[in-house]
Amino acid sequence: MANNNISTRKFSEIIEKLAESAQWSNQPGGNIYIPRLPSRGEIHETIELLRSALFPGYFGLSDVTEQFLPFHLGSLLEEVMKRLKIQILSSLCFTYPDPSKVAEYEIQAQKMLGEFIETLPAIKNSLSQDVAVTYEGDPACASEDEAIYCYPGIHAITNYRIAHSLNSLKVPLLPRIITEQAHSATGIDLHPGATIGKKFFIDHGTGVVIGETCRIGDNVKIYQGVTLGAKSFPLDMQGNPIKGIPRHPILEDDVIIYSGATILGRVTIGKGSVIGGNVWLIHSVPANSRIFQRAPKEDDFDRGSGI
Amino acid sequence: MANNNISTRKFSEIIEKLAESAQWSNQPGGNIYIPRLPSRGEIHETIELLRSALFPGYFGLSDVTEQFLPFHLGSLLEEVMKRLKIQILSSLCFTYPDPSKVAEYEIQAQKMLGEFIETLPAIKNSLSQDVAVTYEGDPACASEDEAIYCYPGIHAITNYRIAHSLNSLKVPLLPRIITEQAHSATGIDLHPGATIGKKFFIDHGTGVVIGETCRIGDNVKIYQGVTLGAKSFPLDMQGNPIKGIPRHPILEDDVIIYSGATILGRVTIGKGSVIGGNVWLIHSVPANSRIFQRAPKEDDFDRGSGI
Amino acid sequence: MANNNISTRKFSEIIEKLAESAQWSNQPGGNIYIPRLPSRGEIHETIELLRSALFPGYFGLSDVTEQFLPFHLGSLLEEVMKRLKIQILSSLCFTYPDPSKVAEYEIQAQKMLGEFIETLPAIKNSLSQDVAVTYEGDPACASEDEAIYCYPGIHAITNYRIAHSLNSLKVPLLPRIITEQAHSATGIDLHPGATIGKKFFIDHGTGVVIGETCRIGDNVKIYQGVTLGAKSFPLDMQGNPIKGIPRHPILEDDVIIYSGATILGRVTIGKGSVIGGNVWLIHSVPANSRIFQRAPKEDDFDRGSGI
Amino acid sequence: MANNNISTRKFSEIIEKLAESAQWSNQPGGNIYIPRLPSRGEIHETIELLRSALFPGYFGLSDVTEQFLPFHLGSLLEEVMKRLKIQILSSLCFTYPDPSKVAEYEIQAQKMLGEFIETLPAIKNSLSQDVAVTYEGDPACASEDEAIYCYPGIHAITNYRIAHSLNSLKVPLLPRIITEQAHSATGIDLHPGATIGKKFFIDHGTGVVIGETCRIGDNVKIYQGVTLGAKSFPLDMQGNPIKGIPRHPILEDDVIIYSGATILGRVTIGKGSVIGGNVWLIHSVPANSRIFQRAPKEDDFDRGSGI
Amino acid sequence: MANNNISTRKFSEIIEKLAESAQWSNQPGGNIYIPRLPSRGEIHETIELLRSALFPGYFGLSDVTEQFLPFHLGSLLEEVMKRLKIQILSSLCFTYPDPSKVAEYEIQAQKMLGEFIETLPAIKNSLSQDVAVTYEGDPACASEDEAIYCYPGIHAITNYRIAHSLNSLKVPLLPRIITEQAHSATGIDLHPGATIGKKFFIDHGTGVVIGETCRIGDNVKIYQGVTLGAKSFPLDMQGNPIKGIPRHPILEDDVIIYSGATILGRVTIGKGSVIGGNVWLIHSVPANSRIFQRAPKEDDFDRGSGI
Amino acid sequence: MANNNISTRKFSEIIEKLAESAQWSNQPGGNIYIPRLPSRGEIHETIELLRSALFPGYFGLSDVTEQFLPFHLGSLLEEVMKRLKIQILSSLCFTYPDPSKVAEYEIQAQKMLGEFIETLPAIKNSLSQDVAVTYEGDPACASEDEAIYCYPGIHAITNYRIAHSLNSLKVPLLPRIITEQAHSATGIDLHPGATIGKKFFIDHGTGVVIGETCRIGDNVKIYQGVTLGAKSFPLDMQGNPIKGIPRHPILEDDVIIYSGATILGRVTIGKGSVIGGNVWLIHSVPANSRIFQRAPKEDDFDRGSGI
Repeated sequence: MANNNISTRKFSEIIEKLAESAQWSNQPGGNIYIPRLPSRGEIHETIELLRSALFPGYFGLSDVTEQFLPFHLGSLLEEVMKRLKIQILSSLCFTYPDPSKVAEYEIQAQKMLGEFIETLPAIKNSLSQDVAVTYEGDPACASEDEAIYCYPGIHAITNYRIAHSLNSLKVPLLPRIITEQAHSATGIDLHPGATIGKKFFIDHGTGVVIGETCRIGDNVKIYQGVTLGAKSFPLDMQGNPIKGIPRHPILEDDVIIYSGATILGRVTIGKGSVIGGNVWLIHSVPANSRIFQRAPKEDDFDRGSGI
Repeated sequence: MANNNISTRKFSEIIEKLAESAQWSNQPGGNIYIPRLPSRGEIHETIELLRSALFPGYFGLSDVTEQFLPFHLGSLLEEVMKRLKIQILSSLCFTYPDPSKVAEYEIQAQKMLGEFIETLPAIKNSLSQDVAVTYEGDPACASEDEAIYCYPGIHAITNYRIAHSLNSLKVPLLPRIITEQAHSATGIDLHPGATIGKKFFIDHGTGVVIGETCRIGDNVKIYQGVTLGAKSFPLDMQGNPIKGIPRHPILEDDVIIYSGATILGRVTIGKGSVIGGNVWLIHSVPANSRIFQRAPKEDDFDRGSGI
Repeated sequence: MANNNISTRKFSEIIEKLAESAQWSNQPGGNIYIPRLPSRGEIHETIELLRSALFPGYFGLSDVTEQFLPFHLGSLLEEVMKRLKIQILSSLCFTYPDPSKVAEYEIQAQKMLGEFIETLPAIKNSLSQDVAVTYEGDPACASEDEAIYCYPGIHAITNYRIAHSLNSLKVPLLPRIITEQAHSATGIDLHPGATIGKKFFIDHGTGVVIGETCRIGDNVKIYQGVTLGAKSFPLDMQGNPIKGIPRHPILEDDVIIYSGATILGRVTIGKGSVIGGNVWLIHSVPANSRIFQRAPKEDDFDRGSGI
Repeated sequence: MANNNISTRKFSEIIEKLAESAQWSNQPGGNIYIPRLPSRGEIHETIELLRSALFPGYFGLSDVTEQFLPFHLGSLLEEVMKRLKIQILSSLCFTYPDPSKVAEYEIQAQKMLGEFIETLPAIKNSLSQDVAVTYEGDPACASEDEAIYCYPGIHAITNYRIAHSLNSLKVPLLPRIITEQAHSATGIDLHPGATIGKKFFIDHGTGVVIGETCRIGDNVKIYQGVTLGAKSFPLDMQGNPIKGIPRHPILEDDVIIYSGATILGRVTIGKGSVIGGNVWLIHSVPANSRIFQRAPKEDDFDRGSGI
Repeated sequence: MANNNISTRKFSEIIEKLAESAQWSNQPGGNIYIPRLPSRGEIHETIELLRSALFPGYFGLSDVTEQFLPFHLGSLLEEVMKRLKIQILSSLCFTYPDPSKVAEYEIQAQKMLGEFIETLPAIKNSLSQDVAVTYEGDPACASEDEAIYCYPGIHAITNYRIAHSLNSLKVPLLPRIITEQAHSATGIDLHPGATIGKKFFIDHGTGVVIGETCRIGDNVKIYQGVTLGAKSFPLDMQGNPIKGIPRHPILEDDVIIYSGATILGRVTIGKGSVIGGNVWLIHSVPANSRIFQRAPKEDDFDRGSGI
Repeated sequence: MANNNISTRKFSEIIEKLAESAQWSNQPGGNIYIPRLPSRGEIHETIELLRSALFPGYFGLSDVTEQFLPFHLGSLLEEVMKRLKIQILSSLCFTYPDPSKVAEYEIQAQKMLGEFIETLPAIKNSLSQDVAVTYEGDPACASEDEAIYCYPGIHAITNYRIAHSLNSLKVPLLPRIITEQAHSATGIDLHPGATIGKKFFIDHGTGVVIGETCRIGDNVKIYQGVTLGAKSFPLDMQGNPIKGIPRHPILEDDVIIYSGATILGRVTIGKGSVIGGNVWLIHSVPANSRIFQRAPKEDDFDRGSGI
């Protein structure tokens, strides 16, 4: 009775068309023949588990005492490892589809996982410094606890530091999924390929974009809506963009970029510079520069039309 | 024992006040007497099912083989139809509350659903081209798979193309809910009433706003933070804005708008134009224009105050 | 078999390092010894319940009739009170860790809760006016229902008005968590400490930031990407920012700020002023000012490089 | 790759066979064309809600205070009514399939529901007495609370009294589903058609069966494994059993039946009788009878074979 | 603060003891080294999916129309196959632990699965007849629909017929888990190794036990509490029972066994026999026998003691 | 519109009646004023966690390797302790309602918990022997793994041994809830007060009842449907049964009881005795007795009536 105004023939035609174009993939065979795809839901849950291992007491393990903490951390980390290995393996299988290599990928995934896990103390140490500058840098921040618990910047940087570590180990696809999940939650889009130094502070953060080949020094502050993007890019002979060429800004230590500024291209913002809000900047500036938008005009423009 | 410092009388007064003002609706009777409201949770789940029918192998159907794909697509699509019909019906009942017309609305919903389902192959075809230009247009994008799996632009455009089709069939309320769910997930706000051509590419996307009466050509690229908005709007005799008048920009084919640009009003951006970042533009420009913010000034403004 | 390429010794070392640095907190003892932490998941669910009490028929209580509404509102509100009290108590225990004071905090939480609940009718009344101006102010908005159901501005302002009420009662931490959850869902970041008048309208909203000490009058409109931020702030003798000093803009009644404008510092935007998009403004302006970015330049800049 | 050793043709044949024989129903048209089936999951949840309304403080409403109890009960009961009406309607549509009568069934379902709800105080009163005799009748029962909380007999009798009330109102199918859910949880199978008096006590209860036409007086005790069944039944001309004829035992007041006794047929167990364990009884017995299995024999039977 | 009265040393000792005796398995290496264990939760869900494929319209697929049924059945069956294969493989790995054979087991599991799926039409056909005799055999059963929807006998026989098919294909462990899940839900314990003919009817069923080597003919009726068990069994030289020897009853066609009867050993109950309730029977009986417990005695036994 | 045929007045009356009789409890004040009730859902989950700690690798921890097992067991056990403490405390508060003693109960609960946890290695050891005799005693049992994974007897005995330990520590209410949950899942009703020796084997088990004051020796086998119950019990002056008096059977070592036997009263079944199926026994028997039901009669009883 329900849905009966579409004929069986028409319905089958639609199904056929949807099925026909299922081979999106630019890889031979198309992805739908590959049994294992990374799962965005699984990745999300795994990263949340990892976040609770990095910030015990804040996420997940809310009332654990010191006595039992090592047991919980061990159990949690083993769970993270088990899940992450599956996702790394899926990413390899999906990116380099070759059924004959699954066993080889399994060994590779295990190796990548082991190396990643060993970077966790360093990641934790970096995040600890990011938290400290967040507290110090924002008069509205009442404690380091509030920074951890409420600041989207810390959320996004945590995902970035995890993803960057995986990206450095050449894990495909997974790092981008991890940073995109932070992007969706916070509006902060940090490419896992970017290099970001110590004591990084992003305030508010919505609309921040930091591109793949950015290099950012220590003690840099970025406000919401800042773009560190690419200006243009060379094409190969087929007219496709050449991948991987350095094309995003370099920010030296102690730089501050105010909200809504757009900096494009492989330019260098010298140490200690301050870039004002809403600036459009496509050239390098020396150390200690102070760059601002020209003063606005006041006029009666369009007064009659209601604006 | 709990909560006992609020008196029963006071509690009842608060309840009464909350209940009294429940009739928000500007429709006679108030909405709370209408038995069926569209459900945001249901709509979200239905759109996710539809996404997995449009991109089989990427969402939901992660390890289906070619042999069984038609069964899964058929089953999935029937589920989508069943759910979507209820939401369309609810939207009609909610928007045009008239208990005597429920049976009529049911027929109307069935008809709208049937027509919508027939647009799915075309939607899929458009999305396929959107995916292709995303891969081609971003050097950081490693494959079409990554575009589908990780790019918020593709997520938002998928919701838009579904919502736009429903909007063209005069389904009320539902299209806006669908695009708002993408807005929440991606920060990209595409009004279902806008007209968007083939091969549309949004990169990063947080903060993009495309208004109800925009008309966008083929092969257009938009970066994060771009606003295509209304400058002002005429009021009717009661001082309310007159709804539905064309008031947003027209973008001709091959236009590129860089991050943070704001273009307001029924202006036309001519074919092949490039609008630089952070520009404020309220006039039409001819084909092949290149518009940029004036060069910033460098000064020592406020150096003493710490900025 | 799984995970076996990390040695037990290495694994234990990592655990030890993660556990060692668990004492993030700048409070004596470290937070992990405090039994109760506020729960972000619980807070989220509680606020959603409260939203359905404030907008009955739109959220949660979708098909309740007038006859039974008071029962449902009573039951819902009692549930909200029970949950909220636990979160207020947790916030007190977490912020002022002192095991000897838990009983005292329990009384304080009960009192704060009671006072908060009594503000609900006023909150509802304010939101009712916010909904009305949203409908009136946007030609794309088909009804007040659509404003409630689809507009991220209404979502964010609802969280803000709840959080602001709690903040005024000196509930720690919780208000910021509540506004951050709206920030994540909508991209609109309204600090609970800000003061916002009646008939507030935010359109689209992604990227809006309104800082802690802002004072906003009645009938103000804000578009996406607008920042009302701090320009700089004095440091104390230890070099830490002094907390709580007024440092954000004052907007008088009837002000409109277009998308992407950045206004920084304790400046005053006079009654009835209009600030155009993408403006960078760090000085006060008198009533009825109209401030716009300087006209962009059109040139052939970088034409050869592909931009 | 998965599942690929079954050919598409073979798979389709199996599907076809499973689909062909889908018309189980002995009703014209077969059930799969009827849009609404009662849902066992929904019924289960609804009965659990009703249980918490009948025993507030024990199930569901675990920490409600007197002040707010009426709100919660009202909200709960309205929820029960809303859900139960759908299930009654589904039962009618399923049992008497006739698309032209759906509107009529809706009115009938509403009427049945109203009448059922009015029996709730009487059901509660009966259960209150069942709880009291359970506590009084079992030395192992520490309190009435334990009877409510732990005794499968109380669980099964609650479902029975609800189902019996619905059955008396001629609601089809639903009553049997409700008693079967108790049967599954407790091993106690009470047919909703049976008539059971006040102060009924079932101890342990696994394996108890009480048939459709049983009539049980007040103050009766039944132990585990007792069957009150039918001995045989007349057939109609087609050889089918004639439905609805009295064929199960009558137990007068104050009867006790010990574990494992089987009583079959329309026999009467007189007032105050005691039937011992494991008895097979197919004749009536007068008041105050005491019936026991003959003394067992002691022998060396099968000693050699290991028993 | 919580749990602090157990010392870390004591806690570690307990952990150590629990971990030490983890190697329950009588297989070399112990089971905890085998990566894949069958999952009872997964098996439960898979069997429920299969039940909805065998009885479409009753379970799971509650409002599917004829038009879309094949799509849903195909999708459902493919899901069942995918899940079942994993569980068969796990059962093989768990029962015959040998890491070097996993690939071989995978092929074997695929083969077993394929053969099992081909038996589904026959299983469906048998169940169809079981449903028919249930309706015909019980005057309290209002329709075949009620038999399918409410009778624990049909639930248990469905699980048995599935499990028996898997058992015949030598799938280890899994069949027993499947029948135990029905045992838990219904109190009916049918060993997957038993052979049961057509038109099998179990009424009420709680406490029914049918042993591994039973052979049951066509058209047999069994009531609650009936045991078809083993009397004794020979031991091997180590004193362990010899597995697999025929040791349970044979029931020829058309036999009826009333509630609570216990029949033990490799005895034969001749065609058409009726065994009364609560009988203890350990010898064969010829065709058409009628066996009943001796008449009970009526006496004043224990009258003084309250029984 | 829904539910509107019940008047608001009638509805309120029903609510009032349901609320009035909410004070079931025989304790002063009624239970609904006590804030903490034990939660059956929580208890269920906690016992399942404990089951997975007692049988690691079978339940919950399905693919843990030896390397990480101690972390998982530690984490699991701490979780069990945290949850169990809350339930013990609730049981104390509920059973002995006295708001002034909550702090005292908290200490008592902590102490009870600590003592209980120390009995876990002994419980595990006992269960290990129960598993061994299950495998040895049933020719149908293919391995100890199958005994753990599939035998309801092991499930029920596990709950019993946990509950008995808590009962011995005088934890109120909770032990009975734990054994009732096994009763519901398996049909086996083992009172936590009973004393059961080593190497206990229950086969099939549905309908087994073992009363509160039973004393069972080592190496005892019990089949389905066996009752070890009370025959009668003395009343106190008010006519209530006197609680706690020994009134259930004593089974010495090496006893076997076949299915359906009923043994009532404080009788002793001597060492090594075998009691046949369906026997009704209310006297003691010496060591090595073999007791069977008298041979059944074969007759033509009721042949004409269809039985």
